Amino acid sequence: MADIKENLAAILYAKDDIRLENFPLREVGDYDVLLEMYCTGICGSDVHYWKHMAIGPFIVKEPMVIGHESSGTVMKAGKNVKNLKPGDRVAVEPGVPCYRCFQCLSGRYNLCPDMEFCATPPIHGNLCRYYVHPANFCFKLPDHVSMEEGALLEPLSCGVHACKRGGVKVGSKVLILGSGPIGLVTLLTAKSMGASKVIVTDLLLGRLEIAQKLGADCCIQVNRSDSEEKLVKCIEESLGGPPDISIDCSGFQSTVKLGLKATRAGGTMVIVGMGESEFKLNLMDSLVREVDIRGIFRYANDYPDALAMVASGQVNVKPLVTHKFKIEETVKAFETAFDSSSGAIKVMIYSKKDS
Amino acid sequence: MADIKENLAAILYAKDDIRLENFPLREVGDYDVLLEMYCTGICGSDVHYWKHMAIGPFIVKEPMVIGHESSGTVMKAGKNVKNLKPGDRVAVEPGVPCYRCFQCLSGRYNLCPDMEFCATPPIHGNLCRYYVHPANFCFKLPDHVSMEEGALLEPLSCGVHACKRGGVKVGSKVLILGSGPIGLVTLLTAKSMGASKVIVTDLLLGRLEIAQKLGADCCIQVNRSDSEEKLVKCIEESLGGPPDISIDCSGFQSTVKLGLKATRAGGTMVIVGMGESEFKLNLMDSLVREVDIRGIFRYANDYPDALAMVASGQVNVKPLVTHKFKIEETVKAFETAFDSSSGAIKVMIYSKKDS
Amino acid sequence: MADIKENLAAILYAKDDIRLENFPLREVGDYDVLLEMYCTGICGSDVHYWKHMAIGPFIVKEPMVIGHESSGTVMKAGKNVKNLKPGDRVAVEPGVPCYRCFQCLSGRYNLCPDMEFCATPPIHGNLCRYYVHPANFCFKLPDHVSMEEGALLEPLSCGVHACKRGGVKVGSKVLILGSGPIGLVTLLTAKSMGASKVIVTDLLLGRLEIAQKLGADCCIQVNRSDSEEKLVKCIEESLGGPPDISIDCSGFQSTVKLGLKATRAGGTMVIVGMGESEFKLNLMDSLVREVDIRGIFRYANDYPDALAMVASGQVNVKPLVTHKFKIEETVKAFETAFDSSSGAIKVMIYSKKDS
Amino acid sequence: MADIKENLAAILYAKDDIRLENFPLREVGDYDVLLEMYCTGICGSDVHYWKHMAIGPFIVKEPMVIGHESSGTVMKAGKNVKNLKPGDRVAVEPGVPCYRCFQCLSGRYNLCPDMEFCATPPIHGNLCRYYVHPANFCFKLPDHVSMEEGALLEPLSCGVHACKRGGVKVGSKVLILGSGPIGLVTLLTAKSMGASKVIVTDLLLGRLEIAQKLGADCCIQVNRSDSEEKLVKCIEESLGGPPDISIDCSGFQSTVKLGLKATRAGGTMVIVGMGESEFKLNLMDSLVREVDIRGIFRYANDYPDALAMVASGQVNVKPLVTHKFKIEETVKAFETAFDSSSGAIKVMIYSKKDS
Repeated sequence: MADIKENLAAILYAKDDIRLENFPLREVGDYDVLLEMYCTGICGSDVHYWKHMAIGPFIVKEPMVIGHESSGTVMKAGKNVKNLKPGDRVAVEPGVPCYRCFQCLSGRYNLCPDMEFCATPPIHGNLCRYYVHPANFCFKLPDHVSMEEGALLEPLSCGVHACKRGGVKVGSKVLILGSGPIGLVTLLTAKSMGASKVIVTDLLLGRLEIAQKLGADCCIQVNRSDSEEKLVKCIEESLGGPPDISIDCSGFQSTVKLGLKATRAGGTMVIVGMGESEFKLNLMDSLVREVDIRGIFRYANDYPDALAMVASGQVNVKPLVTHKFKIEETVKAFETAFDSSSGAIKVMIYSKKDS
Repeated sequence: MADIKENLAAILYAKDDIRLENFPLREVGDYDVLLEMYCTGICGSDVHYWKHMAIGPFIVKEPMVIGHESSGTVMKAGKNVKNLKPGDRVAVEPGVPCYRCFQCLSGRYNLCPDMEFCATPPIHGNLCRYYVHPANFCFKLPDHVSMEEGALLEPLSCGVHACKRGGVKVGSKVLILGSGPIGLVTLLTAKSMGASKVIVTDLLLGRLEIAQKLGADCCIQVNRSDSEEKLVKCIEESLGGPPDISIDCSGFQSTVKLGLKATRAGGTMVIVGMGESEFKLNLMDSLVREVDIRGIFRYANDYPDALAMVASGQVNVKPLVTHKFKIEETVKAFETAFDSSSGAIKVMIYSKKDS
Repeated sequence: MADIKENLAAILYAKDDIRLENFPLREVGDYDVLLEMYCTGICGSDVHYWKHMAIGPFIVKEPMVIGHESSGTVMKAGKNVKNLKPGDRVAVEPGVPCYRCFQCLSGRYNLCPDMEFCATPPIHGNLCRYYVHPANFCFKLPDHVSMEEGALLEPLSCGVHACKRGGVKVGSKVLILGSGPIGLVTLLTAKSMGASKVIVTDLLLGRLEIAQKLGADCCIQVNRSDSEEKLVKCIEESLGGPPDISIDCSGFQSTVKLGLKATRAGGTMVIVGMGESEFKLNLMDSLVREVDIRGIFRYANDYPDALAMVASGQVNVKPLVTHKFKIEETVKAFETAFDSSSGAIKVMIYSKKDS
Repeated sequence: MADIKENLAAILYAKDDIRLENFPLREVGDYDVLLEMYCTGICGSDVHYWKHMAIGPFIVKEPMVIGHESSGTVMKAGKNVKNLKPGDRVAVEPGVPCYRCFQCLSGRYNLCPDMEFCATPPIHGNLCRYYVHPANFCFKLPDHVSMEEGALLEPLSCGVHACKRGGVKVGSKVLILGSGPIGLVTLLTAKSMGASKVIVTDLLLGRLEIAQKLGADCCIQVNRSDSEEKLVKCIEESLGGPPDISIDCSGFQSTVKLGLKATRAGGTMVIVGMGESEFKLNLMDSLVREVDIRGIFRYANDYPDALAMVASGQVNVKPLVTHKFKIEETVKAFETAFDSSSGAIKVMIYSKKDS
């Protein structure tokens, strides 16, 4: 763009090395919009790349703009764009699939093998001043929805996807293992979908207090020494029966085990993420009770629902933002997100000048 | 029961002829409970039997106890009953299927051809002082749920069934045609299931005002002279797009036509009941847009969800009750329910002595 | 293409006016393949355009190449094409959606409002010597699958879509109303999906004989004077119970009525196409039995299944082809397809030189 | 029954101790039929009880009649029985649920906690001369279906349940790990449901040869030393892509691991049974590819489909029977079933006198 002289971007060069530098904009295609970015939330995966330069098979080999939980304002729309116009405030769904493969055509574009996802190497993220993105993956925010809420649609969509995969519905009893950011958005979503009782577990009381505030019907602080039997009993008493759906948002072998054991026959266990690669599980017990085990990978067709939940007032995601920084303070923001004693749930970075 | 001397019951003898008489109790079987009935809501079908002695193929040939939206208190439990004990307050799901047929075994017991349903001839209803019912179709009410709410689980279950059949989910845009009792419980349920926007239509402003109070995002008062095109446009503007699901709770050819036309491609049209037997419809238009058409018949496995919705505070059904009568005043209660100028939504009859 | 001098195409100019003329090829894009077309089946819709220049809202306003049931051989592949290479023989799925809308992203691209579908005006068809098409909608035929079978994947995909929408599965009892080309491919598919008994009805004995040959478990020749009751009884006796799924491939009010009446409670009625726009139906009876009514529009993600059915030998579509013509004889081919006394099921036109 | 003097039954007393003794018949209830048993297949679980007196939590504490894969002839029907009459030949579905619990009412009666299942202690089996069973769990065999086929509906129903849980459909590519009796019935079912390609793996060539005969599109003999990578590659090459559904019928950690790795993103892994209680699995890899993991427990609503498959000729289960014995030779029959060198797939025991 002739009129954009400088595009400040947070670029990950190496472990513990994020630099604020100018980054060239790609051209605005016929189906694209040019965005003036507003704010970007920091995700656990961002921090992990910052500390390790890799997540599983994804390795940062070249300097990469970081960030993928963002919102911004349309500055210019490509000639085929119908859904947006300059001035529209939008949330950015960060992954763009190939559109043409079997997965894309059958509605599961999150599984597209050629997905280009912001800040998953080698694709650049969008923690920068300006950004070009396909318009169909930008969702217009109503006036009463804030830019921060727009950015938070990203983690919220993870919660939506997890709850859909779990089959949460009116009357469901839901167990959520882990009260971090993903546990919390999953809680919000489960309540929105009509779950009658949601119980959240965590090791840390502070995190459970937030779950309580966000609407958890019950919270259980777990000690590492608690027996599985005791916890299962406690969960059943709190819910008035075993959970229909358990959603692990912790990634520990112990929480997955607990979830599998607690879930009712014919129920579903959703595992959002896993810290360790190999688990030792007593699958037998859950399999003969036909407890289905389902993983999740990002989301597909969930942004519109996440936006609808926020716009209709069904969920209030605002309390998730605990810290705010300017893009120039990105390193400090990452340090805060990494510091477990900071009390950070969601750290938000503002890339708009004078925002 | 030796200790029950008299069981006052509202018995339909002929058109406009309900009599309050003693009615013999059946024995309490091993899986049954004996209930002291508390209150019973009047349903449109009750009134229809009172006025016509028949609904479709169901004809009242012998005097029949009326009523099927009831709650009561357990007085005695059969020896195989595990879920209830004397003193428990319960909502009564009024239909008992054969358990053994294909429909029962596959989870759709509402379609059981041998269903015995309260106040569907020749099966007696439960607007009476005492009543014997299978314990597994009696649902224990938590202390904070009132007997009236228990009775209202019956119409609410119709709403739950309609919304489930329609596939209402988080983010759904829902059009409800008709703001009578069934339209209102469908509205409550749709919101509970996470529908982001629910629009209700009716001819009468008074009924729409109640919908508004109960949480409708938008109400449209329809005039008989309104063109379909105008109404479709109005619905789309209110919802910000066409409805994903339309649920007809009016039973008119015109409302069904409007719903079919308004629903988005790939959406669902649920038709709860129909006043006329033969409809003239332009199915072609909806079929090529793959708008599915689904009827509903009562409910199956929906009482637990309806109870969960009420118990968790997700819905407030109490405002539905507009009039209250003692069982001795049953005829007056029916007259009120029948009188369209009475403003009645749900008329509740109390059968418990001194209630 | 420099090397393609002439592209003979069958172009519809006006009612009863198809002309064989040269037609310019569009450029081969990065995701496209250039095909040397082999053969094209004539569909009822092609004949309808030829006779009426319109189907419903789709009106032929400019001369349009006709044809959409085709196969061909890859001559050249765009630079981003991975699944095909020159020499590959392919079946052509004739519709190309926008990829970006809600319907496309959620797996129902057949409902894409911006679909470009061969020989649905104003989009040109592919009854021509050469044709350019997106590679992801060209399906490579194994060596043992003929070009004619490739072309027949188009109607077969309609059958696959209808049966999927109806939920045909192992053990299903299926009623197919109408034994024309679509009825026959639906029959083949239903058997492939494990339907235990398929019954086909038609007015014409000759058409039923083909159904019999293709594997119908039972055929019923219907007379216009037959009562619905008699036919329902006859269907139930033949199937050993009412059909789980009825699929109307006739488009008459009478057949849809019969299907609705015959289908078991909780079953599904699929309506493939309808001749008249307004139907008078007793919906009440089917709705209270929760018989779902579902239309179909073309197909989505069904070509791969249709190909798998043919390639694995589960179905034999070859007997469907009754007449063969060269592209130069297109008018004669259309006359044959139009002539109800010709005995034509599928008329195939060969566009490859010297084929 | 006055006219039945003696009911010879195979009773498990202790490890390796089955005795042929008279066993008292229970009364024929109103919904029951009295059967003259014809034949009973031996299942791996029968053999396991014979050798260990327990499977998991199920322990044989009292002498128990063994056997649950049976067919017989109706001698007498209770007064409420409508579907059967004396002389009818039937297959016996061996589990009777409580009918009243949440699982029963919602169509998953196999998960009923109060299920009474033949030869699962403390419930007696039906390897005996006469037997009383609820009529709704007895399925009438058409004349052309043999008693042996009737008995084989039991294992076949396991295959049906596994394939339904896996979502096998037209066009599916299916990997079946293990070519024992359950692997083979799963193969037969998968083909019946329209799977386009089914590949079966096993360690033993002899077992694979039977799979080949029964319709496997491809068989892979696995060596314990084969690397997972090699096997996955071999599977993909044979199927022309990764399996949509993998069904483990072996119960080894290694086969489950292989199945998880091989299944395509968005596919399903069904685990039919597991030999070891704790597995060490790399769930991470499958979870992020959204490969669902589903166990199975017996079957529900699958007998009618299994019967339809056999009656319609879609599957031929007869070759599964490799050995036949009289009930008096029950011990010899069990020894044969236990002897891995016997070549036994299904050992059938005939309890009818002079059969």
